[in-house]
Amino acid sequence: MKHSKVGSPPGSLVYTGRTKEEVEITIFDYNEKEYKEIKAKKIEEIFPYKDTPTITWINITGLHKVEMIEKLGKHYNIHPLVLEDILNVDQRPKIEDFGEYMFIVVRMLSYERNEVKSEQVSIIFGKNFVFTFQERKGDVFEPVRERIRNNKGIIRKMGSNYLVYSLIDVIVDNYFTILEKIGEEIEELEDKVIFHPTQEIVRTIHHLKRNLIILRKSIWPLREVLSTLERGESQLIKNLSMYFRDIYDHTIQIIDTLETYRDFATGLLDIYLSSLSNRTNEIMKVLTIIGTIFIPLTFITGIYGMNFKYMPELKWKYGYPMVLFVMLVLSIIMLLYFRKKKWI
Amino acid sequence: MKHSKVGSPPGSLVYTGRTKEEVEITIFDYNEKEYKEIKAKKIEEIFPYKDTPTITWINITGLHKVEMIEKLGKHYNIHPLVLEDILNVDQRPKIEDFGEYMFIVVRMLSYERNEVKSEQVSIIFGKNFVFTFQERKGDVFEPVRERIRNNKGIIRKMGSNYLVYSLIDVIVDNYFTILEKIGEEIEELEDKVIFHPTQEIVRTIHHLKRNLIILRKSIWPLREVLSTLERGESQLIKNLSMYFRDIYDHTIQIIDTLETYRDFATGLLDIYLSSLSNRTNEIMKVLTIIGTIFIPLTFITGIYGMNFKYMPELKWKYGYPMVLFVMLVLSIIMLLYFRKKKWI
Amino acid sequence: MKHSKVGSPPGSLVYTGRTKEEVEITIFDYNEKEYKEIKAKKIEEIFPYKDTPTITWINITGLHKVEMIEKLGKHYNIHPLVLEDILNVDQRPKIEDFGEYMFIVVRMLSYERNEVKSEQVSIIFGKNFVFTFQERKGDVFEPVRERIRNNKGIIRKMGSNYLVYSLIDVIVDNYFTILEKIGEEIEELEDKVIFHPTQEIVRTIHHLKRNLIILRKSIWPLREVLSTLERGESQLIKNLSMYFRDIYDHTIQIIDTLETYRDFATGLLDIYLSSLSNRTNEIMKVLTIIGTIFIPLTFITGIYGMNFKYMPELKWKYGYPMVLFVMLVLSIIMLLYFRKKKWI
Amino acid sequence: MKHSKVGSPPGSLVYTGRTKEEVEITIFDYNEKEYKEIKAKKIEEIFPYKDTPTITWINITGLHKVEMIEKLGKHYNIHPLVLEDILNVDQRPKIEDFGEYMFIVVRMLSYERNEVKSEQVSIIFGKNFVFTFQERKGDVFEPVRERIRNNKGIIRKMGSNYLVYSLIDVIVDNYFTILEKIGEEIEELEDKVIFHPTQEIVRTIHHLKRNLIILRKSIWPLREVLSTLERGESQLIKNLSMYFRDIYDHTIQIIDTLETYRDFATGLLDIYLSSLSNRTNEIMKVLTIIGTIFIPLTFITGIYGMNFKYMPELKWKYGYPMVLFVMLVLSIIMLLYFRKKKWI
Amino acid sequence: MKHSKVGSPPGSLVYTGRTKEEVEITIFDYNEKEYKEIKAKKIEEIFPYKDTPTITWINITGLHKVEMIEKLGKHYNIHPLVLEDILNVDQRPKIEDFGEYMFIVVRMLSYERNEVKSEQVSIIFGKNFVFTFQERKGDVFEPVRERIRNNKGIIRKMGSNYLVYSLIDVIVDNYFTILEKIGEEIEELEDKVIFHPTQEIVRTIHHLKRNLIILRKSIWPLREVLSTLERGESQLIKNLSMYFRDIYDHTIQIIDTLETYRDFATGLLDIYLSSLSNRTNEIMKVLTIIGTIFIPLTFITGIYGMNFKYMPELKWKYGYPMVLFVMLVLSIIMLLYFRKKKWI
Repeated sequence: MKHSKVGSPPGSLVYTGRTKEEVEITIFDYNEKEYKEIKAKKIEEIFPYKDTPTITWINITGLHKVEMIEKLGKHYNIHPLVLEDILNVDQRPKIEDFGEYMFIVVRMLSYERNEVKSEQVSIIFGKNFVFTFQERKGDVFEPVRERIRNNKGIIRKMGSNYLVYSLIDVIVDNYFTILEKIGEEIEELEDKVIFHPTQEIVRTIHHLKRNLIILRKSIWPLREVLSTLERGESQLIKNLSMYFRDIYDHTIQIIDTLETYRDFATGLLDIYLSSLSNRTNEIMKVLTIIGTIFIPLTFITGIYGMNFKYMPELKWKYGYPMVLFVMLVLSIIMLLYFRKKKWI
Repeated sequence: MKHSKVGSPPGSLVYTGRTKEEVEITIFDYNEKEYKEIKAKKIEEIFPYKDTPTITWINITGLHKVEMIEKLGKHYNIHPLVLEDILNVDQRPKIEDFGEYMFIVVRMLSYERNEVKSEQVSIIFGKNFVFTFQERKGDVFEPVRERIRNNKGIIRKMGSNYLVYSLIDVIVDNYFTILEKIGEEIEELEDKVIFHPTQEIVRTIHHLKRNLIILRKSIWPLREVLSTLERGESQLIKNLSMYFRDIYDHTIQIIDTLETYRDFATGLLDIYLSSLSNRTNEIMKVLTIIGTIFIPLTFITGIYGMNFKYMPELKWKYGYPMVLFVMLVLSIIMLLYFRKKKWI
Repeated sequence: MKHSKVGSPPGSLVYTGRTKEEVEITIFDYNEKEYKEIKAKKIEEIFPYKDTPTITWINITGLHKVEMIEKLGKHYNIHPLVLEDILNVDQRPKIEDFGEYMFIVVRMLSYERNEVKSEQVSIIFGKNFVFTFQERKGDVFEPVRERIRNNKGIIRKMGSNYLVYSLIDVIVDNYFTILEKIGEEIEELEDKVIFHPTQEIVRTIHHLKRNLIILRKSIWPLREVLSTLERGESQLIKNLSMYFRDIYDHTIQIIDTLETYRDFATGLLDIYLSSLSNRTNEIMKVLTIIGTIFIPLTFITGIYGMNFKYMPELKWKYGYPMVLFVMLVLSIIMLLYFRKKKWI
Repeated sequence: MKHSKVGSPPGSLVYTGRTKEEVEITIFDYNEKEYKEIKAKKIEEIFPYKDTPTITWINITGLHKVEMIEKLGKHYNIHPLVLEDILNVDQRPKIEDFGEYMFIVVRMLSYERNEVKSEQVSIIFGKNFVFTFQERKGDVFEPVRERIRNNKGIIRKMGSNYLVYSLIDVIVDNYFTILEKIGEEIEELEDKVIFHPTQEIVRTIHHLKRNLIILRKSIWPLREVLSTLERGESQLIKNLSMYFRDIYDHTIQIIDTLETYRDFATGLLDIYLSSLSNRTNEIMKVLTIIGTIFIPLTFITGIYGMNFKYMPELKWKYGYPMVLFVMLVLSIIMLLYFRKKKWI
Repeated sequence: MKHSKVGSPPGSLVYTGRTKEEVEITIFDYNEKEYKEIKAKKIEEIFPYKDTPTITWINITGLHKVEMIEKLGKHYNIHPLVLEDILNVDQRPKIEDFGEYMFIVVRMLSYERNEVKSEQVSIIFGKNFVFTFQERKGDVFEPVRERIRNNKGIIRKMGSNYLVYSLIDVIVDNYFTILEKIGEEIEELEDKVIFHPTQEIVRTIHHLKRNLIILRKSIWPLREVLSTLERGESQLIKNLSMYFRDIYDHTIQIIDTLETYRDFATGLLDIYLSSLSNRTNEIMKVLTIIGTIFIPLTFITGIYGMNFKYMPELKWKYGYPMVLFVMLVLSIIMLLYFRKKKWI
């Protein structure tokens, strides 16, 4: 929600997130032969890299220092609405092409204590620079950094767009990890709902569905972003269609799995509800069996517990055993009836 | 509903709303250097501003004086069907391009006492004028007025279309505020449905769904309106694609959230219903436990309450404690059985 | 259903409706200056108007005299399949362009005693004539007739296509009236379902849904018809785009409202079902409270109702009050337990 | 299912149906002036008609003699995959254009003892011949045959494509007959579910839904077939657009009705389930009323049935009537409480 | 899931499956006149066949020896992302055109012990070679092999694309076999749910739905693959449109049947749930009948079991039979009431 912004003029820079972590700026500057890794303190430190022929990746963590983003925007000539979108951290994944540079929003997900957390990663990239913006420390980019450091794969031979591809690729790969964990959780739930169904489970299923909805909201629009990238109409992303197509396929696969999980979650609820009905049924059966056997018997004892003066049976020698016998026969008839009805 | 209009010829001006507030006309006339703010009494007061080069924004509150709208329509040469649409205040958001001017309908929402209220805002704008029509006093345009007064942002430097953009922007921003309130309400409901489920909750959920439906009806068609504005095919809205695209993105985000809320509301109903079944189950269990223990015991007391003359047990010295002991054992067996069944 | 027609050759004229009302032919012949209104007895009376330059509107009520339609078809050179469609009165709304003339089917609705009735209105119109066919007396065209008689609005100044537009417009306006009545009915139902839920309500909701389905079937395809008319590709409907667009917007609004009503109807069923579960729950609670308190107490009385010779308590002076006291304590404990469980 | 075929090379002719009726070949050979109707015994008898200028309609019933189809295929130069499709009698409706001839699959339906049966009709037609293949004796083509015999309508004046149109038309007309019967069945079910709801009804509704699904599967793809025919892109079907459009409209109408019936069937299940809940509720109410009145009263009798020596009430002269009075008052209070709760 | 791969550079070859079977390479090298069938031990053995004019089909079973795939990729110049996809065995069906060769992923299904198993088959084919990759031993290709061996059908006369077609055809034919088994299972379930409904059934239905979801995920995307093949835009698949169209039709038919089965499964759950409600209802009825008859009777016996000194009835001669008679009458009234209510 961007409540705190309501009414401010368009393009005004207001950070809408809650986290206010210390700002961290890391610069990777590389070409095929060499690379540098620098931790910058001030935004101005990155400006010299603007016109070098090497590829420069600048990752900025912590977005609450709005003036920093503003300076950066001015120096790199970024459109104010883009800067606004970077700070407005509840965006759906999207892509915008500004000719000189492209702006991409994707969502980086994490799964902690059964809770899906979603963080906005904004990417701006031009011919030889890539900016990434994230709210909180901790990301999934470490493998990419390693590949740059160790010149693993072709990353140092390729342009800025290949870096962008690699970053989106690790983000999407991470979705698989999360799906896997949720898949395991669903299997556990399936066991529970069959062998130990409790009301608690409805909450867990509700929670699960909620997580799936958050995932869906984060991943679904990514499809369109990747489809745009695959078409490769911009000069900046030409020649990488194959690669973006690959992530596109992964995304479709993830969405498929999400839908499947949703169906499973609904199925679990059905099992729970039917098992609830079934248990009520079982309980009722026990009460009915007990009641149906003993209520008539108790009635009989009631008859012979009456204090009428003239009740011939009471004086019969074998009255008592006869009544006991009648009650026994009655019970057996009842039990046979229940057996026939398949209640016992 | 436009019941009162049935059968009148097309283009006849009939106000279909219920509110009959005093008419208020406010004029903002501005360019980059200066601005005027005037409260007009008669519609004729606005006519002089027609041919000035400055941007003129005329806001009209209260629509029941049909003849006023008619005069305005004649003087500015507005199509009768447009005038009809302004007075017919149950329109869906829509946009129509008349070359000289454009006609836009959007819905301004408010949320009071858990009730979403929807008011039609009709916008007509040409090269240097903007008309806005609303039924009731009170709107969300104050921030825009402030920006004009204080020359904040670029609003005074831009044309009438930027003003239109700013107005739609604050209307859409206001949707976020409403969604936020509804989001809080849903969280409260979630707590309630888990910890204090009452039949009342079904009504609240029904009410919530109703609000979501009204929101959806008001916002969904706006997508198309903004998509048209973004394409910027008309001369009147050229060069603002980026800006309208921005609101378009917000609208998509709002619709996403609405769908999510709808899923949550359905989920809440599921929780409630299952908790109802669960409680019936619990209640039945208590009755069954009590019944199953005491009905057989009562039967035993019934037996020894019978008045047969020949009942040997009655005369046994330890008959009474033996029966008590048998009953105790029976109860313990029952309790163990219930424990095994996990009923206690 | 067109059962009675199965197997007859295509284009055979068989009337499939049930009503067999007296045929009524009314002719409106008008231009800007004058108008005539004639009640014809025979179909031949309308033939002279074929080649006059004035606009002629011929309305035919009652379709069972097939030979009449046949004659008309021959004289005006109408395609046999069109004539078949006029008589086959269960058509969906549709439009067909034959160059010389256009054929439109719309459905006129009425709402009597909570029952939506649907009647087919077939319209054939060419450059200066309009035919309308309806099964039963009584229609919604009176306002149009009044406008022609009194030269109100621009109807007498415009061509046959404007007449067609006016006719469809009053038919669609009438849908709003019906929706309004259904809306009121839904509000009543909402009150009932909350305060006096009975099984009757399920039937009423089912009936309501049925009505909504009939409405949907009649209105949904109209969208496409109006969309075709709005595009104005035929010479016959050029220049009226704005007007047809207006009805198109109304139709969309009606369909929106229908969907909303459908959601409400489903919501009502949910409320009813949950209130049913809730009442079962309430009833069970009462039984359980009574049973749980009195069954154990009755057991105690049973114990001291036994006739054992050696039961020391029976001879205690304060045995009776003690037992009463124990039972009182037991009841209080039970009641406290129920209070804790929030059952009372 | 085409199980028995798995693994055979494409284009191998294997009959997948179950019926093995005697083969029947009937030939209609006609032009405007004369017609012949011949029952052939061998497939070779039809070959002479190949090159005559008259229209020849060859109907083949019984498909298990695969070699016959093979001969025919060779002589008329039909593609092996088409022959395979003719014998593979579980095809969806489809159309294929081979230039020289067209291949159409439609499904002929029948409704016997509440069971929808579906039979594949394969049609091959060229400039002056039409082949129809069906599995079983009995079809809906009799009216077409009658029209050819009696030169009724324009069928003898038109080409082979008009014959194809007429055949598809009677097949689709027959769907209306089936829908009508199902419609009546639904109305009966509606009465039953309201006045005599039994568990049997769930099975009937399930069965009904099953029938609707079979209908849907048979009719839905026909839409596309007819849409292709209507476009009339092939030389073979030119000039008949109007006619195919007519069947297309009927098909849409049938699909509409099917969807409506499906909604009704779902609605019926809802009514049944709610009436079940309602009856459980009613039953519980009776038990609760009886229990709540008599269990406390029985407790009171239990008290005065105890055998304590010192129970002063027992010796009171009016103890007995007083207790009876107390019990009466208690019952009345209970009944008033139930009345207030609207249980009685 | 491809968890183990997260973070590795794109195009890195990591096998994601679980099976680690011995690698098996079989080569079929054939033209119209002769054929060879060779079991290779090393991947290098297949290289000589690269440039022969004969068609070469190389089937590789077992994918965990990544370096083998790598060598093959280098020698045949296959794109690294394709190699990655071959090893990443959870792909959806897809097709990619690389000009020189095409890459197709389909899923081969098997059905063992009520469990649908899905295995990825990757196909790479160029002008005169076809590679197929599968994880596990055992496939459905035997009929194709037989046809090559015995020169059955036209397979040896056609190119590599016809071989690809034949392979996909047997895979899709196999889906029919699986559907048939599931169809039988559904029929069994239908009988069970009607005559022996147990809680077990919900699990079986859940399991069935799960299988249907897996089938759907494997088959649905195949549609698109076949649609691409049918369009025949690549040189490699020209002239086979008819054939791919045929499999396309089968796939649509399979998807149709899957949807139908899904509807049936949902219907079964509805029957089960309603039968559960119905049984609870039946059980409640028995308890209520017993309770409603005997609780009041027991109350009466309770009255005359009281020990009041002054109870005139007790001393009446015919008191006892009178009470018995009253109780009999009461029971009969109750039974008549139940009969009226249709409970017995």
